[in-house]
Formats: sequence, C-alpha cells, structure tokens
Amino acid sequence: FLEVFKDTIVTPRKLNYKVQFPGPTGTNAVESALKLARKVKGRSGVISFTNAFHGMTLGSLSVTGNASKRKGAGVETSDVTFMPYQDYHGEGVDTSVMLENYLVDAGSGIDAPAAVIMETVQGEGGLNAASAEWVQNIERICRKHDMLLIVDDIQIGCGRSGDFFSFEKLGISPDIVCLSKSLSGLGFPFAVVLMRPELDIWSPGEHNGTFRGFNPAFVAATQTLKTFWSDDKFSESVHKKIDYVTKRLNEIVEKAPVKCRVKGRGMMQGISFEDASLGPKFSQMCFERGMVIETSGIDDQVLKVMPALTIPMEELESGLKIIEEVVLNN
Amino acid sequence: FLEVFKDTIVTPRKLNYKVQFPGPTGTNAVESALKLARKVKGRSGVISFTNAFHGMTLGSLSVTGNASKRKGAGVETSDVTFMPYQDYHGEGVDTSVMLENYLVDAGSGIDAPAAVIMETVQGEGGLNAASAEWVQNIERICRKHDMLLIVDDIQIGCGRSGDFFSFEKLGISPDIVCLSKSLSGLGFPFAVVLMRPELDIWSPGEHNGTFRGFNPAFVAATQTLKTFWSDDKFSESVHKKIDYVTKRLNEIVEKAPVKCRVKGRGMMQGISFEDASLGPKFSQMCFERGMVIETSGIDDQVLKVMPALTIPMEELESGLKIIEEVVLNN
Amino acid sequence: FLEVFKDTIVTPRKLNYKVQFPGPTGTNAVESALKLARKVKGRSGVISFTNAFHGMTLGSLSVTGNASKRKGAGVETSDVTFMPYQDYHGEGVDTSVMLENYLVDAGSGIDAPAAVIMETVQGEGGLNAASAEWVQNIERICRKHDMLLIVDDIQIGCGRSGDFFSFEKLGISPDIVCLSKSLSGLGFPFAVVLMRPELDIWSPGEHNGTFRGFNPAFVAATQTLKTFWSDDKFSESVHKKIDYVTKRLNEIVEKAPVKCRVKGRGMMQGISFEDASLGPKFSQMCFERGMVIETSGIDDQVLKVMPALTIPMEELESGLKIIEEVVLNN
Amino acid sequence: FLEVFKDTIVTPRKLNYKVQFPGPTGTNAVESALKLARKVKGRSGVISFTNAFHGMTLGSLSVTGNASKRKGAGVETSDVTFMPYQDYHGEGVDTSVMLENYLVDAGSGIDAPAAVIMETVQGEGGLNAASAEWVQNIERICRKHDMLLIVDDIQIGCGRSGDFFSFEKLGISPDIVCLSKSLSGLGFPFAVVLMRPELDIWSPGEHNGTFRGFNPAFVAATQTLKTFWSDDKFSESVHKKIDYVTKRLNEIVEKAPVKCRVKGRGMMQGISFEDASLGPKFSQMCFERGMVIETSGIDDQVLKVMPALTIPMEELESGLKIIEEVVLNN
Repeated sequence: FLEVFKDTIVTPRKLNYKVQFPGPTGTNAVESALKLARKVKGRSGVISFTNAFHGMTLGSLSVTGNASKRKGAGVETSDVTFMPYQDYHGEGVDTSVMLENYLVDAGSGIDAPAAVIMETVQGEGGLNAASAEWVQNIERICRKHDMLLIVDDIQIGCGRSGDFFSFEKLGISPDIVCLSKSLSGLGFPFAVVLMRPELDIWSPGEHNGTFRGFNPAFVAATQTLKTFWSDDKFSESVHKKIDYVTKRLNEIVEKAPVKCRVKGRGMMQGISFEDASLGPKFSQMCFERGMVIETSGIDDQVLKVMPALTIPMEELESGLKIIEEVVLNN
Repeated sequence: FLEVFKDTIVTPRKLNYKVQFPGPTGTNAVESALKLARKVKGRSGVISFTNAFHGMTLGSLSVTGNASKRKGAGVETSDVTFMPYQDYHGEGVDTSVMLENYLVDAGSGIDAPAAVIMETVQGEGGLNAASAEWVQNIERICRKHDMLLIVDDIQIGCGRSGDFFSFEKLGISPDIVCLSKSLSGLGFPFAVVLMRPELDIWSPGEHNGTFRGFNPAFVAATQTLKTFWSDDKFSESVHKKIDYVTKRLNEIVEKAPVKCRVKGRGMMQGISFEDASLGPKFSQMCFERGMVIETSGIDDQVLKVMPALTIPMEELESGLKIIEEVVLNN
Repeated sequence: FLEVFKDTIVTPRKLNYKVQFPGPTGTNAVESALKLARKVKGRSGVISFTNAFHGMTLGSLSVTGNASKRKGAGVETSDVTFMPYQDYHGEGVDTSVMLENYLVDAGSGIDAPAAVIMETVQGEGGLNAASAEWVQNIERICRKHDMLLIVDDIQIGCGRSGDFFSFEKLGISPDIVCLSKSLSGLGFPFAVVLMRPELDIWSPGEHNGTFRGFNPAFVAATQTLKTFWSDDKFSESVHKKIDYVTKRLNEIVEKAPVKCRVKGRGMMQGISFEDASLGPKFSQMCFERGMVIETSGIDDQVLKVMPALTIPMEELESGLKIIEEVVLNN
Repeated sequence: FLEVFKDTIVTPRKLNYKVQFPGPTGTNAVESALKLARKVKGRSGVISFTNAFHGMTLGSLSVTGNASKRKGAGVETSDVTFMPYQDYHGEGVDTSVMLENYLVDAGSGIDAPAAVIMETVQGEGGLNAASAEWVQNIERICRKHDMLLIVDDIQIGCGRSGDFFSFEKLGISPDIVCLSKSLSGLGFPFAVVLMRPELDIWSPGEHNGTFRGFNPAFVAATQTLKTFWSDDKFSESVHKKIDYVTKRLNEIVEKAPVKCRVKGRGMMQGISFEDASLGPKFSQMCFERGMVIETSGIDDQVLKVMPALTIPMEELESGLKIIEEVVLNN
C-alpha cells in the first residue's frame, strides 16, 4: 500500500508526505494529527472553524463546532479557539483578515496556537466551500505565525472533489492531511495521517493501537488506488459528473418556488433552503420516492447530494430527477 | 458605609444592587463576580473582549487579553472566549453583530456562556471607549441569550467618567458591577461587588476572606461618598475638567507632527500614536519634565492622562502643557 | 450479531446490556463509555487507576497512567483522578479503603466523579490482576457514592480470562463494559460498548461515525460467537491452558536464578523481573529463538505470555519452553 | 519595611528570601506563589493536600480541598493533584511514602508537578499539625523530584506557632513562603511572598496590582516587627501561652464525657469531637457565655482556640474556662 500510495498519489502531485496509520477511522486520524501538531510546536492551542466537524472522540470533538455533539463530551472541551469560516459574517467580511488581526495583536486574548485545522468543504457543517483565495490566506497566516496547517480531507478527499486531494487546485500545501472513509475503496475502516517528513517526531509506540491497519483494508486500498488513480480517467469521469450535478442543481434552484441556493463543491454539493425545515422534509420525501439522501448543516437545512463516485450517469440523473420533482412541486 | 452607599449612589440612580465585600482589591472583585455569574447560570463559559484587563489572579487573568500577563498564570487559562471589542475589526464592522452570530448559531463552536464581562473604557488595553449603542447591543444580546452582564468599573468607575458609574449615560443596567481603586477615597485596599438582589445565591462562607473590609477603609469610603457624591457639584466639576482635557488633547493631536489620535473617555483619555514607540518615549520625556504619566495599550502606544479627579485646573493645564510641548516638538 | 450476542453471551450470564457500536477500536469504545457516564451523571470527573491503559485518543489518554503516552496528547489532560490500584502501596495497604476515605471526606479535594474505569487485569500496566474482594469493594463504593463502574475488558475480555467476561467470577456487575480486539474473531476492527439499558440516554446521532460497524466484522464476530461460545467447550479448553501456563510459569520462577514472580491472570500471565532490564532482554532472546513475545509494565519489566486462545497445547508448551530456557540460563 | 523585615526576621534565621508584594491578602500571595512556581519549573501541575485551605480566588481555590468552596468556582478546577496529608489514611500509613511512590512511577498517572503547596498546620482543615519528620520527607521528595516547596504560612505564621515562621523548628527551608493576616499587626490588608532569590524570574509588571502595598500597612508592619521581633521576649511569652493552652486543653479532653482529642499546634490548637455536631454546638454555647470561638474542619468538628498572641494570661484562662465548662457539662 505504502509504495502504491507513494507512486500513484504522492509523487505525481509533487508532494512529500510520510504516512502514519493512526487507527482505522477518521476521528483517530484527527486525534493523531492534533497530537502531532501540538507536540511539534510545543503549544496546546488549536484553531478550528465555525461549523467544523472532525469526529466523536474527545480531541476531535473539541475542534467540532456543533454544540450538541460537543456537549456529549461531558467535559468542557478546551485548548481550541473557533474562528469564523469564509463568509461566516457575510460576504463583505474577509474572515481571514480577522484571524490575522487576532494573531498579530498580543492583547487579543487569542494566543499563537500549534495549528489550524480546516476542511476545504465543510461536509457536515452545511456544505460551505472555501475559495482558493481564502485557503491561501489561511496558509499564509499559518506560515507567518509558525502554525501548522492541518487539512481534514476525510469527507471531501479521496476523489470527491474530482481530484484525489480536495486542495490540489486550491494552491496550498498542508503540513498534515487526514484521510479515511472511502480510502479503502470497500468500506473497510481505514485511515491515514500524512505529514511533511520533518514533522515525524513521534517516539516509537507514542501513538499505538491494535487496529491501525489490517490486511484486507491494505489490500483493498491498494487495489483501489491502482484501479482508479493510476491514470486520469477516473478523475475526468468524476469531474464530468460534478459538472453535471452543478448544472442540474442550479437549474433546480432557479426554478424552485422556495428560497434556496446551491452549496458545496465536487460530488458533495447540495441545496440549502432558507426555510431550514425543508431540508428534513424533502429528504423524507426523497426517501418515500426510493432515494436515501442526507441533510447537512446545524439545522439540517441542506439537502446533500453525495453519491458514490462510480455512480453511472443515468442513476445520477434519476436521483437528481427525484430531487427536482420534490423541490419544485412542494 | 452600606447605608451611605445606598442613599448617595444606588437609590438616586434608581438602581437596585446588593453589596458584597469580595476582598480588598479589584482582582478579588472580578473573581467573585465570575464565580457568582457561573454559579447563577450553572455554566462555566465567560465572554471577555480583546484587550480587556481584569486582574492578576487566575480567574481574572483568564479574562485578560494580554498574552504575556496571561502566560504568567503558568497554566492554560480556560472557560473564556474572547470576542472583538467595538471597532476591533475596523469601524465598518459591527462586532456586536458578530457576537450575536456566534451565539445564535449552534454550530459556531461558541457555547452560551454564563456572562459577558466588559469595561466600558478599556483602561489598560489602549483606552478604547465603547459607544452607548454598542454597549446597549451587548446588553440586549445578554438578555436574549440568558447571560449576565458584568461591568468591570474598577478603573473608569467611582467618578472618572464624570458620573459615579461609567455606564450611567450609556443606557444599560449591568447585572453585576465591580468597583475598587478610588472607592475608599484614600488609597486603602477596598472593593465591592454589586449585584442585582436576586442573583445573591451565595451560601454563607462560600466566598470568605480575612480582609474583605477593614474599618479605616469603611470610614474613609463613607466620608468620600458623603463629601463628593451627596450632591452634583463634584460630578459637575469633573465634567468641566473632562471637557477641558478633551479640548486640549484634540488641539494637541491636530497640531502634532506625527500620526496620532485622542482616545478614551472622561478623566481617562489619552493620545494614541501610530508609531507605538512614541508612547514610552514621550512618557519618559514627560517624566524628565517633572510629570509621571503612564502608557496604555499592548504596545504602550497610548499616553494616558489620568489625574486625580480633584486636581485643580491650573495643575491640570500645567500637565497638559508638558504633554503639548513634548508631542509637538519631538 | 446482536441476536447471537444476546443469546450466547448476555442472557446465559443473567446480564442485561444494551449494545452500542462506538467506532471500530478499543479507544473509541472507551471514549464512548466515558462520554456516556459523564452525560448520565452530569459530572465531569472520572477515577482511573495507577498504571491503567485505555487508549490513544484524548479522552482515553486522559485515563491512561503512562506519563509519556499521556504527554503525547500535547495538552494537559483533565477531569481525571488517579487512584492506587490494588497493592499499589504494598500488600498491607487496602487501596479501596483509601478511595473510600477520599470520597467520604468533603475536604479531600477529590470530588464525586461520574464513574470509575477499571481493568480487572492491567494488560499494559504490568499484568496487575485485581482480586475478587478488591473489585467488589470498588463496586460497592461506586454504588454508595452514585458513580458508574466501567470495566475496560478490551484486552482481558472475550475469553482471555477463561470466561467471556473477565469479571464473571469476580462477583461484580459493571454498569458499562468495553470490548474490542478479538471480538470479531478475525482481526477486523470492531468494538462494542455494553451498558445497562437505563443508561442509554444517547440522543440520536450524538455519538456517530462512519465505521462503527461493517459487514465482514459483523459476520465474523457472529460466527466467532457461534463457534466458540454456544457451549462451554471452548471456555473449558482455555481454562485448561490457563492452568498449564500458571503451573509452568510458577515452575520457571521457582527455578529462576534472578528475582522474579508470576503476574496476571488467565491467558495473560507473565513473569515480572525485579531487574526491569531483563524484560526487554529476555523478550529479545525469545525473538532470536523464533518467538515474538511482548513486554508489559512501565519499565517493560514483565515478559507477557499472551498467545491466541486457540493455540494447540504443544505449541503453547514449545513457547513456554523457550521462555524457560531463556530465563533459567541467562 | 523591607530593611526591618530583613534585619529582624530573615537574616537572624539564616534564611535568604526576596520579598514580593503580591496584593494585600493571603489569596493574592498564594496566587502569586503558584504562578511563580509554575513559571520557574515550566510545568503546570501542583500538588496540594487533603483538607488544605489556601483562598477564594480561582488559583487558590484550585488547591483548596473543601469541595463546596471549590465548587463555588463555577468551573472545573484543574492542574492540581491532592495527596493525603500526614495521617490521612490512619497513623500506620506514611503518606509521604505514597507521594513518593506516585512520583517515582512513570505509570502512576501523577506527573511531576511544579510544586508542592503545604500548610504545616491546616488551620481551616481541622487543625491537622504535621510532624517535623513528615514535612522533612516532603521537602526531601521535592528536592529529589525537582519540585518547589511552597509553605502557606498565612494562618500559622507571623508568630502563631511561637516562632515567626511555623517551620523554624521543623528543619525545612521552603523555596517560597506566603505570609499575610497578622503581618501588618493592625488588621490592615497586607501580604508578602518570600522566595529564594534565584527564583525571582518575574518580568517587570508580570504580576502587578494597585494595592500591593499601601503606606499605613507598611508603617504598621514595620513597627510590629520592631516591637515584637527585635528580641526573643515576645516569642518566649507566646511559647509560655502555648504550653498553657496545651496543658489546659489536654486536661479538658481527659475529663470530657465525650470522645474528643487535642489537635493543632501553637496558638492554633483545639478540641476535635468524634461527634462532629458538638463543634458548632459548643461554639454556640461559648458565644452565649460571651466568647466568640470558631470551628475548624470539614464538618466543623473542631473547636478552635485562636486568640490574639498578645492576650493576657488571665484572659486566656477565662476563655479556656468557658470551654472547659461547656465541654465538661454538656
């Protein structure tokens, strides 16, 4: 797996990452990334963003915006500062400038953290997609203030953006990347943490675990990489589907009788309804028409189109058709 | 003292506060206010503001913006979220709207706190003076989101704004108020916490202490109230001085050869220099000319005019003269 | 799986547990158990024991004794109090009495926690095996002081004690039990949290995750239960092996030229050397003779015999033979 | 003050301390001591003892055993581990050995802290008086494990033990000492932190405050030192009174019809009743006979004899007489 991953993914993208097996799920990857960043920088603080979602174990929960999830921790989560994601305070307000204001000002109350953890598209938090410009600003601020940039690519990574990493076309090079979910290609629990080689200061056994890798997952993941990522065909086919989804969702929104807009990026787009109750309502109606479709956002206000990347075009269209029907006629 | 305080201060202002003696200094008052607010609301979080200063003991340090002071705690301070004070992100950006955004959004990562602690003028943090509109917004948000409003009036209170409380003309009614410093009128360590009566849920001995009040302080404070606050004369004289200071500082700034502006409010105004190094430099030059003058702000960029409220006009002018001379000729 | 687990494990033991899938590894199970206990009791504190090991994510690390592991968190772990495990202060001192002293005394500094988390045998912490009497005392204290008893049976559970649960013959009924490792029977990442039904106050989605269960693991785990636990034969065979291991290790220790003693319980026994350096040394020598054998304990002072439960007797003896040879001749 | 303090107190005792004015009350002194210790050692943890009392601000509360006081903080106090004070687990158990066990063992869950904070007699916690041997053990452990020893001498210091410092005859040299209460001799709020000179790594203004010293307190404290501590007469007179109190309390206890024993040391002794309710009951009965007498201990089980050190012998006896009468006849 390590060789194939290096040859098909890392090297062709001119990246240079060491691979850690942090445990088999996304939340284990996030925990490991946070531990490493704090260890490397010797600082305990981490910056996360409004509406971020990173997982269910204590460290990952601490960087998760959702108050009810976080409350489930049963303790006060700490060592984390939440900053506004792009456009959080409206489109006129550049929230990356705000972040920098706080860090430049030694009286702001917000101390230099070890790292920023960021999703380029917030999968659970309402399909907020950051622009290249904004994430570049965040990266620049990280470099300037000696903080690591962790990208949680667990949901949008592994091809869902059309490219293997969600950040390939955004012009940034994260220090640490978390991958999981479709990484094994077959639904096996499997996760990796990628890190710039010089960051690997783990002591042996410092982050151990029984199930950090198991053979079927290695085999399946390796074959997945070979099958889909040894050339550009798969990526191109996904991009074609993405364009189609984008076009169709925009058509639906234009014709919709209720206030709504298209959100997200790649094969992780959706329709956000101003009347949040429509999200669950329409999801339920899709279900009655034979399609399982999730919602996203703190109030479930977004109907989230997230099919398998290998979905045939006809099936994709039949799903979009159901959405169209439900949204336009209700 | 309690009777005189009630008759000369609380009742005439149509306020209704119970008085607690939390220990003899400002930081004791802040600690007590935070403890009470958390106890009343059963929540541990508190919102403080960028560049706030509230004291040197652990609880007060936690709500203090200054990173180097806070670092002195030797532990990670927690249970506090720092929000931008008025105009922190520039004059176009209403930071009270931001605060509300975070509290309305259950995915923001910022949970409903027990209280907001606020200085109406940030004495140590650069003489930032909040407007009536902004503090009213903060109060409204507190009411809406079931948070207590604590005003730390330790530096700007007891007449320095021209009125006894700094918030009298700002149109707000804090739930808890901290007073200390000039409260005894004679430099004795003395502090009080004022609270709306229904908030007094202290158990007996829950916040005790040896020096919460001592007789000379009670006597001096009582006489101070009688002498200065039994009628409006003192307040009027302070307002006259304030107007004079405002006028003179504006004259100096207009004529100044360097970029600077007047900041603050009441008998706690000053000149903020764009080139922060001028603050300590001019302070030193004033000292050489026979006047002790402090600086304020995270970079000591503000020359802070904070004379005794009883200063004769000639003496006040002679001090301002020194400042004028130093600023205009250097 | 749920039906088979209920029919072969829970019901025959007159237990009554609901099953949660908390994520596929042991640390996910521990995180979930801690979250639930804190939520149920509305208190944040948890008591763990000296030399406990519970996992690598932040919540699990917080209840792990090992300082270097815990330091890997990069933040101060909190909300946990470590109490002495049985015999920690020597055999004459009953540490369960100490625990009760602290809880009875409102001035002890140790507040009533939500739960106690306990391994009946500390697998990583040096193969310390608690007696029935001591764990019964701990349970009694939990009942008396309204704390939940969580048993982390991840390493010693699923048959390694000879019985399915390690606590079956110890006379206690934990409120929450964590299982993982050999649960799937085939090395698949798989874990469960068992809880008394009335403790299941989870809100829907409060502890979610992508890989909490996957089909091959369910299938393998179900078949494992059917194959090994539908009657007593497997358990009896394990007990036979345990008796053999106990006998042989005691023989080795008696003849050993260095100070050492047998520790642990079930198929998780070992030899603890007074000269801690002998642990890694003998482990290495076993390796050179063709056998992989782990060490346990903070100084790796214990040579840990932990074969597969299905190991044939001859193979078991051949392994013990290697240990005997190494220990007696070096 | 500084000169007189040095000449009459520090130098004659062959000590070498720098003096800091941390704010005017005991709790300010404790906060400052903890901050300094953590800063010096770069570690956040502090060890305190069961039934310790150190003050009401957040840092001091964190090292206070009393659960209800600590709960008043409204936040989870952290970075503190409570260890058993001498005889906490009964007279046969040497709790200093336990402390060392934890620190020697890297798997104990108790990490090397910055400091130990200790009262030689626990004034609020039930008049527990530590022996010379035990405090020497604590000091030795501090030295061995690179921790600072802070003695909180706020209640028992300034002569109440018969000597100026409570530890003079105990054979230890604390790194940091906190003094307050009777330090000013006249009931003025006044406190100092004494530290070995090399520990003074404070940055200027890192721990500032308005009321760290005020003139009347300096004057009164200086005169107090001159009057009482320039020769041995005062100390001798206190020792005489102590012997008398000890003798009389023992007489009362021997004749008492209820189970009780003498506790404490110096002019801070008392009678601890097995039936805790007798403490408040007898205190009330003393009050009815014209004497105010406090209780001590988590259940108020100790009647606490703590007169002014200057009390005339007849007055002392008349007070003891009241106690005798109350205890023997009720």
